[in-house]
Amino acid sequence: MTAKAKGQINIKPLDDRIVIEPVEGEDKTAGGIFLPDTAKEKPQQGKVVALGPGRMLDNGERSDMPVSVGDRVLHSKYGGTEVKVNGQDVMILQENDVLAIIED
Amino acid sequence: MTAKAKGQINIKPLDDRIVIEPVEGEDKTAGGIFLPDTAKEKPQQGKVVALGPGRMLDNGERSDMPVSVGDRVLHSKYGGTEVKVNGQDVMILQENDVLAIIED
Amino acid sequence: MTAKAKGQINIKPLDDRIVIEPVEGEDKTAGGIFLPDTAKEKPQQGKVVALGPGRMLDNGERSDMPVSVGDRVLHSKYGGTEVKVNGQDVMILQENDVLAIIED
Amino acid sequence: MTAKAKGQINIKPLDDRIVIEPVEGEDKTAGGIFLPDTAKEKPQQGKVVALGPGRMLDNGERSDMPVSVGDRVLHSKYGGTEVKVNGQDVMILQENDVLAIIED
Amino acid sequence: MTAKAKGQINIKPLDDRIVIEPVEGEDKTAGGIFLPDTAKEKPQQGKVVALGPGRMLDNGERSDMPVSVGDRVLHSKYGGTEVKVNGQDVMILQENDVLAIIED
Amino acid sequence: MTAKAKGQINIKPLDDRIVIEPVEGEDKTAGGIFLPDTAKEKPQQGKVVALGPGRMLDNGERSDMPVSVGDRVLHSKYGGTEVKVNGQDVMILQENDVLAIIED
Amino acid sequence: MTAKAKGQINIKPLDDRIVIEPVEGEDKTAGGIFLPDTAKEKPQQGKVVALGPGRMLDNGERSDMPVSVGDRVLHSKYGGTEVKVNGQDVMILQENDVLAIIED
Repeated sequence: MTAKAKGQINIKPLDDRIVIEPVEGEDKTAGGIFLPDTAKEKPQQGKVVALGPGRMLDNGERSDMPVSVGDRVLHSKYGGTEVKVNGQDVMILQENDVLAIIED
Repeated sequence: MTAKAKGQINIKPLDDRIVIEPVEGEDKTAGGIFLPDTAKEKPQQGKVVALGPGRMLDNGERSDMPVSVGDRVLHSKYGGTEVKVNGQDVMILQENDVLAIIED
Repeated sequence: MTAKAKGQINIKPLDDRIVIEPVEGEDKTAGGIFLPDTAKEKPQQGKVVALGPGRMLDNGERSDMPVSVGDRVLHSKYGGTEVKVNGQDVMILQENDVLAIIED
Repeated sequence: MTAKAKGQINIKPLDDRIVIEPVEGEDKTAGGIFLPDTAKEKPQQGKVVALGPGRMLDNGERSDMPVSVGDRVLHSKYGGTEVKVNGQDVMILQENDVLAIIED
Repeated sequence: MTAKAKGQINIKPLDDRIVIEPVEGEDKTAGGIFLPDTAKEKPQQGKVVALGPGRMLDNGERSDMPVSVGDRVLHSKYGGTEVKVNGQDVMILQENDVLAIIED
Repeated sequence: MTAKAKGQINIKPLDDRIVIEPVEGEDKTAGGIFLPDTAKEKPQQGKVVALGPGRMLDNGERSDMPVSVGDRVLHSKYGGTEVKVNGQDVMILQENDVLAIIED
Repeated sequence: MTAKAKGQINIKPLDDRIVIEPVEGEDKTAGGIFLPDTAKEKPQQGKVVALGPGRMLDNGERSDMPVSVGDRVLHSKYGGTEVKVNGQDVMILQENDVLAIIED
C-alpha cells in the first residue's frame, strides 16, 4: 500500500487500527497452521498492509504498535470492518483483535 | 464552512466531535475504494467540514484531533447525528467513529 | 435568568449541568439549520440560560464549561429533565448532551 | 435537624449522601417553578436537612459538597431511599441526584 | 464481639466489610426513626459489631472506615450476606451499603 | 500443601487467587458459626491451603494478600472453580470472594 | 515451539496472550489433579508453549508474565481461541484465564 499505481488510493488508519489483507487458498494450510471450522470464535490469517499511529495512552502519548506492515497474523473477526480498496478486500481491525504473529 | 454566504450559519462542534459531509455518486468508487453493501457494519466515505477542540484528557488538556478540515475519511455511522446545515446534509460524529483517512 | 422580575426564581445548576430554553417556530429554519424528523436520534436547537460550575475532574478541579449563557446550541434530548421555570419550559442537560454551538 | 427535641434523633449521612425534606403544597408553584406531570423523569423540589462529608476522591481527600443545609433544590428521585425521621418523611440521595439549587 | 465467652468465635471482616447486628422490636420506632414498608428499597437499622481495615485505594493505602464498632446505622440490605455467629444473626455488608449513622 | 507425599502435586495460584479446602461436618457449627440454608447468597467456611502473590496494582506492584495459609475463612462461592487435588476437593477463589477470617 | 522442523511455523502471541497445548489421557489424573465433570466452569490442564510480552500497563510498561514456557497450568476455557499449529491443537488464552501452575 506504500507503492500505488495511478488512480489508486492510500488508506491511513487512525488510532490503533490495522488494515489486513486476507491470506487465502493454499497459504491457509501450507504454513503449518490450520483453523478448524468448528472453533467457537473462528480466527483468520491475514497480512498487515497498513497501520495506525497507536492507541492514545492516558499520559497523552501513543502506544507502540505490536505488528509491522508485511507481518502475517492470526486475528479475530470480531468488530472488524470490511471494505474493498483498489480492488482488494481488506479488513480494518483494532490492535486487540490481533492474537499472534505467524512466522515460517 | 469557514467561508459562508449571507443567511448561512457556522457550526462549531464541542469536544472531539467532527462534522462530516457525505461523499456520494461517482466519487464513491472512482477513488479506488468500494464499500460493499453486504458488510455487517457498513462504513461510509465523507469529507471533514468542521472539528471540535479535542477530547478532554484526565490531566485537563485536550487530545489532538487526528483529522483536519478537508480530509476525506472512512467512518462508521454508529452514534452519528444527522442534521441539515445551510441546505447540506451533514453528520456529527465523535473521533472514535472515524476509521481511516483516504488519500488519492 | 440573571435579571428576574419579582416573584421569579433563579436556578443554579450543579456540576456540568446546563439549562436550555428551546428555540422554536421560524427560528428553527431561518438560521440555516434544519433538523429532519427522520433522524434516528433527533437533535434540538436551544439557547443556554444557566450553567453549572463544571464537571469535577479526578484532580479535584473543575473542567471549563464549553458553552456560555446566551449561546445557541444543538443538543441531544437524551437524559434531559424538563421543568417549567417562571412560566418558561426549560431542559436541564449535562455537558456531553450538547453537540455543537451554532453561529449566525 | 441541628436543634432537636427530647426523644428525637440526629441522622448523619455518610459519603456524599444528602437528606432532603420534600417541599409540598402551595410552595410547589409559588416559587416560579412548575414540575409537569408529563416529564419522563419527573424531578422534585426539596430542602436539604443534612449532608455527608463528601465523596472520597482517588487521592484520598473528600470532594466539597455542592449544597448547604437549608438549600432548596431540584432533585431526581432515582436511587433515593425514603425514611421517616422524627415524624418527618425524608429522602436520602447522593450528590449526583441533585440537579440544581433554586433561589427566590 | 471483642469480649467473647468460651467456645465463641471472633469474626474479622476483610477489606471494607462491616458486620452488623439487627436492631429489632421497640427500638425500631422509639428512636424517632420509622422505616415504611412501602419504600422501594427498604433500609434497615443495625448496630456495627465488627469492621474491616478499609478499602484498598489505588495508591496502595486503605481508606478510613466511616463508622465505628457500636454505631447505630441505617443500611441497605442489597448485597449483604446473612450468617449466624455465636447464636446471633448478623449481616456482612460493604461500606457503601451504610447510608447514615443514627444518633439519639 | 507445603509438605506433600510422593506422587502428589503442588498447586501455585496466580494473581490474587486463593485455594480453599472446605470445612465440613461438625466443624460447621462447633466453632460458633452457623450458615443458614435460607440465606440468599449462602456463604461457606473453608481453610486456606495456597495463596497467589497478590493482585497487580496500577503502579506495577502487587497488593498484600489479606489472608494466610491455615486461616479459617468465610467465603462466597460465586466465581469459584472446583477441582480435586491429591484426592482433596478444593475451590480456587479470588481475594474478593473471601468475606472474613474466623478465629476461635 | 522454539525448535521447529522444516515447513513448520512459529507463533508469537501479542500482549498477554499465552499459547497452551492440552494435557490429555493418563496425564490427567496421574499428577494428582482431577477435574470433575460436574464443575460449573470446568477448568483444564495444559502446557505453556508460547508467551506474549505482557499486558501494557497504564504507565506504558508491560507487566511480567506469571508463567513460563514449559509450565503445566490449570486454565479456564472461557474466551480461548482454538487453532491447530504444526498439526498440534493449541488454545490461545489471556493471562487472566490461567488459574494456577501445577508442580509435581
